[in-house]
Amino acid sequence: MTMSFSRVIYREKVQGSLKETHLEVRTSSERPKADKDSGAIVVKNLYLACDPYNLHLIKFSTQLGSPVPGYGVARVLESGHPNFKKGDLVWGITRWEEYSLITTPETCFKIEHTDVPLSYYTGLLGMPSMTAYAGFFEVCSPKKGDTVFISAASGAVGQLVGQFAKLFGCYVVGSAGSKEKNKFGFDDAFNYKEELDLDAALKRCFPEGIDIYFDNVGGKMLDAVLLNMKLHGRITLCGMISQYNLEQPEGIHNLMNLILKRVRMEGFVVTDYYHLYPKFLETALPQIKEGKIVYMEDIAEGLENGPSALVRVFSGRNFGKQVVVVSRE
Amino acid sequence: MTMSFSRVIYREKVQGSLKETHLEVRTSSERPKADKDSGAIVVKNLYLACDPYNLHLIKFSTQLGSPVPGYGVARVLESGHPNFKKGDLVWGITRWEEYSLITTPETCFKIEHTDVPLSYYTGLLGMPSMTAYAGFFEVCSPKKGDTVFISAASGAVGQLVGQFAKLFGCYVVGSAGSKEKNKFGFDDAFNYKEELDLDAALKRCFPEGIDIYFDNVGGKMLDAVLLNMKLHGRITLCGMISQYNLEQPEGIHNLMNLILKRVRMEGFVVTDYYHLYPKFLETALPQIKEGKIVYMEDIAEGLENGPSALVRVFSGRNFGKQVVVVSRE
Repeated sequence: MTMSFSRVIYREKVQGSLKETHLEVRTSSERPKADKDSGAIVVKNLYLACDPYNLHLIKFSTQLGSPVPGYGVARVLESGHPNFKKGDLVWGITRWEEYSLITTPETCFKIEHTDVPLSYYTGLLGMPSMTAYAGFFEVCSPKKGDTVFISAASGAVGQLVGQFAKLFGCYVVGSAGSKEKNKFGFDDAFNYKEELDLDAALKRCFPEGIDIYFDNVGGKMLDAVLLNMKLHGRITLCGMISQYNLEQPEGIHNLMNLILKRVRMEGFVVTDYYHLYPKFLETALPQIKEGKIVYMEDIAEGLENGPSALVRVFSGRNFGKQVVVVSRE
Repeated sequence: MTMSFSRVIYREKVQGSLKETHLEVRTSSERPKADKDSGAIVVKNLYLACDPYNLHLIKFSTQLGSPVPGYGVARVLESGHPNFKKGDLVWGITRWEEYSLITTPETCFKIEHTDVPLSYYTGLLGMPSMTAYAGFFEVCSPKKGDTVFISAASGAVGQLVGQFAKLFGCYVVGSAGSKEKNKFGFDDAFNYKEELDLDAALKRCFPEGIDIYFDNVGGKMLDAVLLNMKLHGRITLCGMISQYNLEQPEGIHNLMNLILKRVRMEGFVVTDYYHLYPKFLETALPQIKEGKIVYMEDIAEGLENGPSALVRVFSGRNFGKQVVVVSRE
């Protein structure tokens, strides 16, 4: 009997927007193996994250015909690496397939706390949350009472940045591509799709201006925010999801405001801050268990629904962290 | 007998490029007075600076029919302010006329060192040099060995940033709108007007990338630099002279590199750093007297040549600090 395993492969070169047809669900009869002392591990993938980062990986480091790479939660089945043993749960970069060979398991985190849903390690306890934590506390230089604006505020990172900022004592407004407001206890929110004039929307929400902008989208929103920054404000660039699908990024015209308002704009990448993961867990786990952090997931069941789930993230139709369930074991 | 005094007034609203016809040399028979205890002073203007900042002041804080404001060096003729007395030399914001009433003399610096040319206080010992000093040492976070790129490198600020950076131990390349290279001892230089591809020019000068970009021009050069920044680079925005004459600023398309390369981009305004002026003089005066700093002036004689001198600065035709001599006393 031949076993067959599902995988989502990168079928056609992405130019412009990601479409479902760029990806394809195929089956394979190969199941990877990890030899003893090979340094590699074989995992069974359980939950996969749909992040803007997937598209970055697809575009810049994935060959056509290979499975889509991305963050996920997985169970170790075979280990040729001294730090991992059969049965361990890990989160880190894996691939969109039932079983994966991970040749650099050092980049994976072992999951120690299993009294929370495992899928949370694709978001609330994984890369997006570390992104929110490091981006806000390490890059934004927040002060209590600061006015904070977050774009893509219902996304995996945005929802957490806003809650960290609220718990820290800031005034928080988010924008999202949906009418659902204030799910996360922000002070205010707006649906950017319903605003004819982003500058006017920002002036309505921030009559005194913005101290901190946590930017997940880039483009027109960034340009409008530049008109509304307060003196010595900080703009932290986390992502530019509005731009990834464009042939050429939109032009930003209002950078002169960085000078007039003495604003610092800084990009960061979460992997530079992974050494802070234990400190993050120490802070966040109690808050999560005490119910102080609201977290929403948008769940797609089965690898076969992966392509449509990933495309949803780029059209702003997801609400909360988009997860694909490969197996609940 | 009626005395008559020259002044350069702002005649016609600037839209797009500054032209000489926006300004006009007129005469006036009024000579200002400063009453005792009025808090004001009357000065005789000696040297006037032609800075990009003049245009900013014209556009945003000058009524039609009023004299052009800007930095200058002047002699106090009458004082109604306890900190100033007749005969004092000062530098600070004055106006393009023979005699000016300065109602907020607190914003002027008294000139203590007169063993250097007085015109230097419009540049090498004044606002542009403080801009270079504060921008480089306080905002760029330089390290010895950093690769530094400076646009408008033959301008008042750029020529000094480059020399401070060289003296500090950095590798320095400048771009300017002229063929004259290496006047200031930079490691390399190029004429941006002769480069068809700015990105290629930067890659030629910085095969390993740029640690620090001191930006005086904005626009296309900034966009090209964004493609060439090194990991954890710093972009200090000092001015955007290429944009001031445009109806709408050009779009910047490559900001995604701020994320990919974890770059910090920060605007600053020199007046926030004026408290460092004594510290700056302590550092710079000995270097100037020892001839370690090359400084060039482009001198226009007489207020009547002021409008053309100012327009030259915006077309990149000046070489060195553009100064207008009102009177050598």
